[in-house]
Order: sequence, then structure tokens, then C-alpha cells
Amino acid sequence: MPAQKPKTTPRGGIDLGGTKIQAAVVGARGKVVGEAREPTPTAGGPLAVTEAVALAMQLATSAAGIKPDALTAIGVGSPGNVDERAGTVAQARNVSGWDGAFPLAAKLSEALGTRVVLGNDVSVATKAEFDLGAGKPYRSLLGVFWGTGVGGGLILDGRPWVGRAAAGEIGHMVVRIGGRLCGCGRRGCLEAYAGRASMEAKARRLVDQGEHTALFEIMQKRGRTRLTSGVWERALQQGDKVAQRLIDQAVEALGAGIASADNLLDVEAVIIGGGLGTKLGEPYVERIREAMMPHLFVDDRPPELHLSTLGDLGGAIGAALVAKTRKS
Amino acid sequence: MPAQKPKTTPRGGIDLGGTKIQAAVVGARGKVVGEAREPTPTAGGPLAVTEAVALAMQLATSAAGIKPDALTAIGVGSPGNVDERAGTVAQARNVSGWDGAFPLAAKLSEALGTRVVLGNDVSVATKAEFDLGAGKPYRSLLGVFWGTGVGGGLILDGRPWVGRAAAGEIGHMVVRIGGRLCGCGRRGCLEAYAGRASMEAKARRLVDQGEHTALFEIMQKRGRTRLTSGVWERALQQGDKVAQRLIDQAVEALGAGIASADNLLDVEAVIIGGGLGTKLGEPYVERIREAMMPHLFVDDRPPELHLSTLGDLGGAIGAALVAKTRKS
Repeated sequence: MPAQKPKTTPRGGIDLGGTKIQAAVVGARGKVVGEAREPTPTAGGPLAVTEAVALAMQLATSAAGIKPDALTAIGVGSPGNVDERAGTVAQARNVSGWDGAFPLAAKLSEALGTRVVLGNDVSVATKAEFDLGAGKPYRSLLGVFWGTGVGGGLILDGRPWVGRAAAGEIGHMVVRIGGRLCGCGRRGCLEAYAGRASMEAKARRLVDQGEHTALFEIMQKRGRTRLTSGVWERALQQGDKVAQRLIDQAVEALGAGIASADNLLDVEAVIIGGGLGTKLGEPYVERIREAMMPHLFVDDRPPELHLSTLGDLGGAIGAALVAKTRKS
Repeated sequence: MPAQKPKTTPRGGIDLGGTKIQAAVVGARGKVVGEAREPTPTAGGPLAVTEAVALAMQLATSAAGIKPDALTAIGVGSPGNVDERAGTVAQARNVSGWDGAFPLAAKLSEALGTRVVLGNDVSVATKAEFDLGAGKPYRSLLGVFWGTGVGGGLILDGRPWVGRAAAGEIGHMVVRIGGRLCGCGRRGCLEAYAGRASMEAKARRLVDQGEHTALFEIMQKRGRTRLTSGVWERALQQGDKVAQRLIDQAVEALGAGIASADNLLDVEAVIIGGGLGTKLGEPYVERIREAMMPHLFVDDRPPELHLSTLGDLGGAIGAALVAKTRKS
């Protein structure tokens, strides 16, 4: 009698972002059977974040009609320096007050009563697009996640490429030597022009310099404290000049950065995701393509550019995939 | 009785550069047993180049005390679009008058009486450093060839990464959006600042604008028609201000471009080769390292930076390695 195949579903997946925590319960073939979203706490450090993550997963399992301890495992896609083996996260730069190594896997496992594994947020989202989304037809791809920051993930010859653990930092490729100050403290990074946090900082400086923009009014009207992707979208729809100019600069920088990455790697496809990428959608994928072309060295066969098909849920689905494939 | 191992040496290797043709006869364990160098013809297109390549290989075999048809095979590392299977090269941009696809392998084979295989110049030089040179201790590396242009080669997880055939174009990564015009017709490429051809064009413009430099006097005194690596070295030794400024800009661009590539790929090591890299040597590897650090995202464990150990012969040795491993 053949051994019974171990049960691998349902699994939980968490995408821990700088602005929001997305939780998903994932069943067979990557199907999402429950989901929930919570804002990322802006105070209280890693402990407050852990509580919010646990709450999001409780709500997602509740939506799926189960309890968290019925999950075979939970995967978390986290920003910062993720030590997968130790289950710790350090320097989650876009999460406030998170510097030292924090045992996220152990704390969450304690709160939710099941095994928790960690992965890099962008790597797991890229893997999800490769396995289940827009990247399925390809053997090599670059995932570009355009949100609070600009993250990148690589699949080369069918496998994730992580280098010595930190590959994929397309947001910190230099697109203008001596250029705009980046949140990382360096100058001229792609993210300094295209990361939503940098764009917001630049918009505030422009307001201080006397320029007018509707961005912050829209933000307040929506009860937000940050310029979310939805706020940018609305300002663009209204024809706000400052918003348009900052987005134009972001698109220009994304075009140059993605072309640079492709000149180096010559991948088959580029997948555009992230909060802004997903919110602004196809028209902006097309604009990024146009911005890329003048810098592409082999421009008679550019890589395919696609919008992420898993969208906002890609990170959480990818995290659930990690929970399937890794033991610790 | 075991089958006799087929004879694989001596092999010939050719590095076809924009300025010179380097030929080598390579014996067991990559040992160079004969070599010769010829200037790359500046007129006459691919036919003239083929003749010069054949002459260089005849001289190299003569130095090794053999005839060309005694070579088991000859490998050629070529610039441009190399179709390894067809044995053709198109658009060898740094070689004058070479646009359409030219059957270099067949023509050379006819002239020299042995099998000829082609490879990309930079890829074969990177493979040579990986197999026999400064890259031996590593599983992942980036080769940066600083010469007439700036070429790049990648080894990832112990194997060459060529993407869809055109990977490695680090010279056309964008380091300054809207920046200096590159020989490729695009703006702001690394090569526009660091490629010797671009640096010479910039020096000529500065002279036209009334600036003084000894670069062209040194060139004439040496009977050269181009600013060779030796000319740049001499001008720097003399404290020529224009030469120093252009080299400073080249180093700055190399630092930013290499850091960008490493932020994306997180390789173990970077090998600096090429005509200028080899000629200027260790002090400039150190300067490139310093220029890289401010842009490196994970700056507490930078990749190792090394000068190519095979130097000027790396391309030819790498080409001979290609002749060993490939059939057609």
C-alpha cells in the first residue's frame, strides 16, 4: 500500500509591506480561499507588527472558515534582512523601529499555533508570478515591485537567483550619478525617483517650495497619513501637475533601471507588480516599456513586459508557496 | 582496452579586439606555448580582419614551433553579434566596416586548415578567468573588461550566464539618465564615460574647445593613431589634467555601474580586465573599489575585486578553451 501523501494545504501566506499586511489562505493549485488586510503599524516596532500580522492571519482563516492552527504552515514574505534559517528579520527599513534581529517566525508560530517560515518579500512574490502568474511561460525573468520602495526578484534558468542572499536590489541601481537622495542614504538610486516613499518626500519638498498639488488634500480627504497608490492614482486622474511630473520621473527612472538590468541579464520577461504598479496598471506598463526602449542595447527583441497577474495577492501567495517547499 | 582519449591540445585562441588581435597557442592546463599580436586593420572590413587574424595565428604557431594545421582547433573570441552555430559575426561595432553577417569561422578555417569555433569575446575572457585566473576561487563572478568599450561577462553558480545570447552588456547600463552620448547612439551608458573610444572622442572635443592636453602629442610621438592604453598611462604619469579628469570620470562611472550590477546580482567577485584595466593595474582596481562603495547596497560585505590574472592573454586563452569544449 503506497504511503499517504502528506497534507500540504491549506497554507497561510503573509505579505508584510511597509504600508499594509496582506494575509491569504491558499488551497490546492495556489487558489486563495480566504484573505484579509491590515495596516502596518507605524509605531510599536516589531512586536506591534507581529500582533497585526497575527490578526490579519486570524481574519483570513476566519474568512476561509478555519482556525489558524488548521494551517499546515504559514509563510511570511518580509522586507529587511531575512535569515530564513534562524527565522529572524533585521533592518526592515520600511517598517518603523525595526533595526535589530527579531525572531518573527518563533513569535508568530507561538501566536498562531502552527509552523512559520520566512522568505524575502520580493523573492517570494517573483516566485509566485513565475509559478502561477504572468511569468509562467518563461525560464528567466525579472520581477519589479513598484511600491513604497522598488524591489526586484530574479528567476534565471527556472530557478530563483539570490546571489549571496541579497540579490535583486534593482531599486538601488544607480540611474543618475550624484542624483536625488534615496531613503537608503545613497544618491541617484532608481528608488530615489520611483519609490513611493521618496516620491512623497519630494512632493513635500515641492510644497515647501511653494508649489501647489492636490496630493495631500486627497490624502487627508481619504483619511490617510501617507500618499498611498490610490492617492497618486486620483491625483493623476485630476491632472495634478506635480503628481504627473513626479510620476513621469519615476517612469523614466524605471525605464532606465529595467533596461540596465536587462542589458546585463538579457531575460525573457519583466513582470511589473507592487502597490503602484498594480494600481496604475497596463497603461503604465506600456509607459515603462516606452521609457525602457531608448536604453535597451538589443532593442530589436526586447524582453516581454507584463503586469503582475497575481497583483496585491502575489506576495502572500508566494509566501504560502515558500511554506510548502521549505522545512524549517 | 580503454578507448584512447582524443588529443585536445595544442589549440589556438584568438582575441579579436577593436585595436589589436591577440593570438595564442595553448597547451595542456591552459599553458601558453606561443603567442603573437597584430594591429586590427582600420580599413578593408571583415576580409582584411580575417587576413590579419590568420597572420597572427601563423606567427603564434611559428613561435610554438608548429604549423596552424597541427592545432586540434582554433577558438575566436569576437565582438559583435556572434552566431556560434552558424560561425558568423555581424555588427562588430568596434571594427570598421563590419555590419552584415560575415562567415568568419569558415573563412579562417579555409586559411588555416583546421576547425574554427566562435565565441563572444567577453564571455570567453570571463570563462578563462573563472577556469584559470583570478576567478578560480568563486562560484559567481562578474568580469568587467575596460578597454575600447566596456564589456561584461557573468558566471552564476559556476556556469556562464548569457541570457538569450546577449547578456553581460554592463557597458550599456545607464549611469546617468540623459548623460554623455555613447558610441552606441544612446545616452548616459557606462561606456560613454569609461570606454576608451568615448574617452578619446571626449578628449578631442575638449581640445576643440581650447583645453590643453599632452594625450595627442604622446600618441603621435609613439606613432599611434588612437589613444591607446599606453598613451593614457603615460599622460597620467605626466600629471596631464585632461587625462586625469577623464579617467576620474571613467572610474566614477565604473564604480556606479559595477555597484549597480552587484546590487542586482550579489556576486562573490568582480574581475577587472581589458586593455585599460590591465595597463593601469592594481592602483586602479583599488580606485574602482572606492568608487563602488558609496553605491553598494550591502556595503558590509562587498564582492571581492581582483585584477585579471591572465591579463592581455585572457581573451585568447578563453577562446582556446571554447575550442576545447564545443564541437561545431
